[in-house]
Amino acid sequence: MTDAATRPAPSIAYSITARLHAPAGGAAISQLTHAVEQAGGTVTALDVSGSGGERLQIDVTMGAASTEHADELVAALRALPDVEVGKVSDRTFLMHLGGKIEMRSKHPIRNRDDLSLVYTPGVARVSRAIAENPADARRLTIKRNSVAVVTDGTAVLGLGDIGPEAAMPVMEGKAALFRRFAEIDAWPIALDTTDAEEIISTVRNIAPGFAGINLEDISAPRCFEIEARLREQLDIPVFHDDQHGTAIVVLAALFNALRVVDKNLADVRIVMSGAGAAGTAILKLLLIAGARDVVVADIDGVIHRGRAGMDESLTWIAEHTNAAGLTGSLRGALAGADVFIGVSAPGILGADDIATMNERAVVFALANPEPEIDPVVAARHAEVVATGRSDFANQINNVLAFPGVFRGLLDAQSHEITADLLLAAARALAEVVTDDELNAAYIMPSVFHAAVHTEVAAAVREAAEGAIAG
Amino acid sequence: MTDAATRPAPSIAYSITARLHAPAGGAAISQLTHAVEQAGGTVTALDVSGSGGERLQIDVTMGAASTEHADELVAALRALPDVEVGKVSDRTFLMHLGGKIEMRSKHPIRNRDDLSLVYTPGVARVSRAIAENPADARRLTIKRNSVAVVTDGTAVLGLGDIGPEAAMPVMEGKAALFRRFAEIDAWPIALDTTDAEEIISTVRNIAPGFAGINLEDISAPRCFEIEARLREQLDIPVFHDDQHGTAIVVLAALFNALRVVDKNLADVRIVMSGAGAAGTAILKLLLIAGARDVVVADIDGVIHRGRAGMDESLTWIAEHTNAAGLTGSLRGALAGADVFIGVSAPGILGADDIATMNERAVVFALANPEPEIDPVVAARHAEVVATGRSDFANQINNVLAFPGVFRGLLDAQSHEITADLLLAAARALAEVVTDDELNAAYIMPSVFHAAVHTEVAAAVREAAEGAIAG
Repeated sequence: MTDAATRPAPSIAYSITARLHAPAGGAAISQLTHAVEQAGGTVTALDVSGSGGERLQIDVTMGAASTEHADELVAALRALPDVEVGKVSDRTFLMHLGGKIEMRSKHPIRNRDDLSLVYTPGVARVSRAIAENPADARRLTIKRNSVAVVTDGTAVLGLGDIGPEAAMPVMEGKAALFRRFAEIDAWPIALDTTDAEEIISTVRNIAPGFAGINLEDISAPRCFEIEARLREQLDIPVFHDDQHGTAIVVLAALFNALRVVDKNLADVRIVMSGAGAAGTAILKLLLIAGARDVVVADIDGVIHRGRAGMDESLTWIAEHTNAAGLTGSLRGALAGADVFIGVSAPGILGADDIATMNERAVVFALANPEPEIDPVVAARHAEVVATGRSDFANQINNVLAFPGVFRGLLDAQSHEITADLLLAAARALAEVVTDDELNAAYIMPSVFHAAVHTEVAAAVREAAEGAIAG
Repeated sequence: MTDAATRPAPSIAYSITARLHAPAGGAAISQLTHAVEQAGGTVTALDVSGSGGERLQIDVTMGAASTEHADELVAALRALPDVEVGKVSDRTFLMHLGGKIEMRSKHPIRNRDDLSLVYTPGVARVSRAIAENPADARRLTIKRNSVAVVTDGTAVLGLGDIGPEAAMPVMEGKAALFRRFAEIDAWPIALDTTDAEEIISTVRNIAPGFAGINLEDISAPRCFEIEARLREQLDIPVFHDDQHGTAIVVLAALFNALRVVDKNLADVRIVMSGAGAAGTAILKLLLIAGARDVVVADIDGVIHRGRAGMDESLTWIAEHTNAAGLTGSLRGALAGADVFIGVSAPGILGADDIATMNERAVVFALANPEPEIDPVVAARHAEVVATGRSDFANQINNVLAFPGVFRGLLDAQSHEITADLLLAAARALAEVVTDDELNAAYIMPSVFHAAVHTEVAAAVREAAEGAIAG
């Protein structure tokens, strides 16, 4: 049994529909909703879907807090006198049946004439034109607007190495978001290899039909080399969203959090937890943006010059951060800090730790799905608190960045992803929130804010075209 | 200047629209249509799209026989007194602008609740379910219905080695046909390598997200090894359409042609021209279907045991055909034959050659776009004549087979493509033409015939499930 006091709020992500048979008379329906509410759930829909004399067939849709909690809600209904519980379906799973995306033809193929235009013999002239002038592929094929969403399934959400098939729902979701927010045609490519060389050669080999590569959920440190080598070898943009998408949204959120607490990036002391793909990318962009005092900790404590057993990436971090030469624990480093940015593990900090931070502290606890510290607890001492979750204020979500970033790159037909470009995207995203709107509970716009993706795209396009012109 | 006597009929595949400015009065419009007709074109639409006092703006859409002929039509219009020709657009190219297919989300993403279901946090539960039970990938992702259309661009239509980008319009067209005729989600994968090992490893690596692989326009002999090795390594069907799709439709057409001329497959003498991917696959299926007397010729003449310089594939052919030990030319071998099947080169036979064939001869001249012999000429001596072209009777077209074949394979969740399965597909396709419908000018149904794809799919599914059960 979940402890009701600490249970998260019911969420649509754990929404179930139970088909019940209950007596027709009296308080039948009110006792159903009451039972669900008593068990901590929320009834979001209640349809009497059939009636047979003295019995009703009722479909009850409920939000739960977790899979276990959903089971508890069903048990609560089952415990009611004279109520039979039939089939229980899960909205999330129903929405995934058969997958979430599809391929469509842009033109109807109704008759032989249509066939002659889209296929043989007409298509031969188009192919010949591209063979004579390869640049025409961007005009006469889907290449211009197509992005491959590539994963090996080794670092999927908070789930870890679950393999390529299990990563597919995430990649399909990503593709759906590319379409929804940037009108991009993305297709998932889930790889049956985790070998860096194989991944590099495979992506290089499939590149001709795509205008961009979105690397997704590939674990560190392989992701660094894969991205770097592919960028060298391909003439289309290669973007590892877990690194650079995250860095853009975190920096944008930090720009706005610092506007709220009235501090300057160049002056604040920043402590980070996590030195994986996301942490390293965030750090690099922070430094480029002008941060001067950053300390990074990982599972072995604060990273400093001379720490034993550091790989290439950690050595780079040691050399570019922690000028004061701090050692010891994350908690120790946090004392007096202005900003905490966590991309690491759940529940590693408590209220007392946040209390040691400077006045007007900023806390980004981004571990997913469970943050480094409960945001409600953090807010007792910090002025601005943000997480990666949708059920608290200030969600820092990659969906704010990647659609616009790719739209801009594709429109500029650029493959250079410079630091300036990432910075421009972060600034554009931050500036969507006006001075009037900005406050401690609203540092990031909604992903449904109409301006987010067009503003990011425009900034990226401008930066990319500047880089081409330069 | 094209010779008008030998010019093919105007086709939609060479349809252009010219914007003209012409005087408003009198016979202006009739002189336009007259000029196009005199030059051998067909006016298919004529829109007065603007009027400015004494001048009209007229958009004339015309069918031409070729690109050169389209230029002649424009020149004929330009030669008219007081007519100015403006922008000329090409319907085929217009239809290809930006590509022919797109990716769509199946569910609207309108708000945060939708986002929670299709992406985080809801998607994590679906991924976890698949990680625990990988077979669920076919239920909860697009895998079940997705086919990769893979090419290296080395043997595209009649165009040869034009490279992956130039092959994209054909692959997109193929994907559109998969959707149109079998409701399959196909996505083009155009490869930047022609190395067999690289192609094999790349396709193997991208396989997890697909339920089938359609190899397309990969040149022989590499295509044989690539297909064979991938079939060994993958648990999804791998189908090289140029081989097996062609073999199915040719055998189906031959079944029906022999019904027309009242001969048996086991008794007829068959002469083939072409020993590439298509020719070899046709030959193998013919032998499995019961043909006993086949002679194959290639560019070096009749293939026979002891011919010098034969590779593995030609040696196999020599050992399984031509029991009489014929040598010499294709033309020589044709004397007395009942059936000619050409998948080779344009214009290699004349009327005199067909005249040497047996009574009630069958001629399949399938070289594309120009057949081995003009079908009108062949029909002077042969009773049944078929080509790969849409502008003659009896088009033998792979589109009749591949959508249904994949539909059946995907529905059966089978990866075994047995000879029985190919035979079953051919029989089902042939049987769509009823005895009442069958005649020398109608041996193959239209690709738009409603029963074609469902019948082929049902036969393939049954054969595949039989193979699994067996």
